[in-house]
Amino acid sequence: MTSRKGNLMGVRDDVKVLDATIRDGGLCNNFDFTDEFVTELYKTNIRSGVDYMEFGYKASRSMFSEKDYGKWKFCKEEDIRAIVGDNISDMKISVMADVGRCDFRADFLPKEESVIDMVRVACYIHQMPAAIEMVEYLHDLGYETCCNIMGVSQASMNQVEEALGMLTDTPVDVIYLSDTFGSMYPESASELAELYLSFAEKAGKKVGFHGHNNQSLAFANTIDTLSRGVSYLDATVQGMGRGAGNCPMELLLGFLKNPKYNLYSLLVFIEKYMLPLREKVRWGYELPYMFTGQLNCHPRDAIAFMEEQRKDYCEFYKSLLDN
Amino acid sequence: MTSRKGNLMGVRDDVKVLDATIRDGGLCNNFDFTDEFVTELYKTNIRSGVDYMEFGYKASRSMFSEKDYGKWKFCKEEDIRAIVGDNISDMKISVMADVGRCDFRADFLPKEESVIDMVRVACYIHQMPAAIEMVEYLHDLGYETCCNIMGVSQASMNQVEEALGMLTDTPVDVIYLSDTFGSMYPESASELAELYLSFAEKAGKKVGFHGHNNQSLAFANTIDTLSRGVSYLDATVQGMGRGAGNCPMELLLGFLKNPKYNLYSLLVFIEKYMLPLREKVRWGYELPYMFTGQLNCHPRDAIAFMEEQRKDYCEFYKSLLDN
Repeated sequence: MTSRKGNLMGVRDDVKVLDATIRDGGLCNNFDFTDEFVTELYKTNIRSGVDYMEFGYKASRSMFSEKDYGKWKFCKEEDIRAIVGDNISDMKISVMADVGRCDFRADFLPKEESVIDMVRVACYIHQMPAAIEMVEYLHDLGYETCCNIMGVSQASMNQVEEALGMLTDTPVDVIYLSDTFGSMYPESASELAELYLSFAEKAGKKVGFHGHNNQSLAFANTIDTLSRGVSYLDATVQGMGRGAGNCPMELLLGFLKNPKYNLYSLLVFIEKYMLPLREKVRWGYELPYMFTGQLNCHPRDAIAFMEEQRKDYCEFYKSLLDN
Repeated sequence: MTSRKGNLMGVRDDVKVLDATIRDGGLCNNFDFTDEFVTELYKTNIRSGVDYMEFGYKASRSMFSEKDYGKWKFCKEEDIRAIVGDNISDMKISVMADVGRCDFRADFLPKEESVIDMVRVACYIHQMPAAIEMVEYLHDLGYETCCNIMGVSQASMNQVEEALGMLTDTPVDVIYLSDTFGSMYPESASELAELYLSFAEKAGKKVGFHGHNNQSLAFANTIDTLSRGVSYLDATVQGMGRGAGNCPMELLLGFLKNPKYNLYSLLVFIEKYMLPLREKVRWGYELPYMFTGQLNCHPRDAIAFMEEQRKDYCEFYKSLLDN
């Protein structure tokens, strides 16, 4: 393993913090956030020095009915503008688009007509050609682009290297290492991060990390990959996100030494908006998510277990071993 | 930083797992565990391959009234024997004794008359001479001994090196790095661990790690220091411990690759005994503990905040900055 980049006392100017609360947190509540919540989070993120705020998904309205989801599943231009106006802040705005679940040719405006700055293309590793097509299209529209390859902990090292090699030949700006199943340890996440960096740096690209908290390691994996050279860091307020959730923003802002990041502004938001939300919506580290993380499998069975309010943890664990 | 010892796939035979649930968890409920709970935990730890089970403190009965605490504050020989008989298992039994809060000359039997195998002497760094006196006395009685230096994150590096140097000249078997305030990151914990190891290894001693979860890093710090050569690892069931709690045993057993460790037996215990307990006793990662961890200070104010069921997180945070 290579040496660390930066140290615990200093500032690395290449670091970018991305708030994914509405997007990954929206998976917990069907994107049912009030406009007040989103507006106040937007203001909070600006005050806290967050670099990017992700508003949600750009999902296909032919595949998903607007009646079944809150508006941040679709992130229509006018809905984002209703919150941010022309976004005169320094904070950039991102949306995520899943390969195979969006109508990217119909739904993205040219960048100069949109308040969106960055599009993050999410795909599984067998979808790389489709992801690259999207990246190239969105880059040509003028957007910054990311590619988030999901589920790499189940892929072979050959596949991962192949995918990284394909991406280095595209205009993508940031390649994200995603610990989709929350199965990575700091040591394994950082080994993968160094592989990603070895491809990305040669091509002038950045690497990001998106963690899940199944093994209570989302923050640890985020700062360990950071110390290896990863620079785009995803977090959500109080870790709000599907299943075990993500890296909590308050832990990350408390760790980063750059004085542009301000924890106190975030605490004001948490006290007023997150505490009431937590009484209605549930997420975070729980045993069933630990099981799927340890076993490196998708959390969907654990999410169902929690939704059914089951308490037979042992039976559930055995059922996972049957897979 | 030196290279890692062992890897994510293999087994290191020097690893010893210590269950501190009754001892550190007892700080959450005044050591008020039923005999059934302790007996079943004892059996569970044996089935799960745990190497040491800590039964509690050996606290002074002249300083602390037996009416005010459960019996595991005092760990009388007959109380431990009521649970374990002669402890015919391979698992060893430990107790903790705080410098200045125990009557070690009166309360410890010679090892051959006791079912206790190991005594862990806990001290702050200014108490090293008193700790060493205890270590030598208890070693002469025939016990394995540990020294857990608390609060080292507030000590100077010179003080830490001085303390480690003093310990290398004693018969102590294990020197514990304790992240008392939950302020350490994997990188800083491992740097300290390597310092501890540099002293310990020359003197033929082992190093242990005891984490706290204030920044959701107890497990991460445990496995990172492990990978640097630490071999004694503290954990508690579901992380039960004062304030933000400790490294959860279920995460640690799920991580270790030695087939002697068995997660399923622990899950059976959790389902039957921990879930009801969690409805009455509260511990674990919460914002106020994150604050004290980030600020490297004692969790007592955060514990009081939680006990008072206050919700004014911002006011509390500001009060900590006043200190």
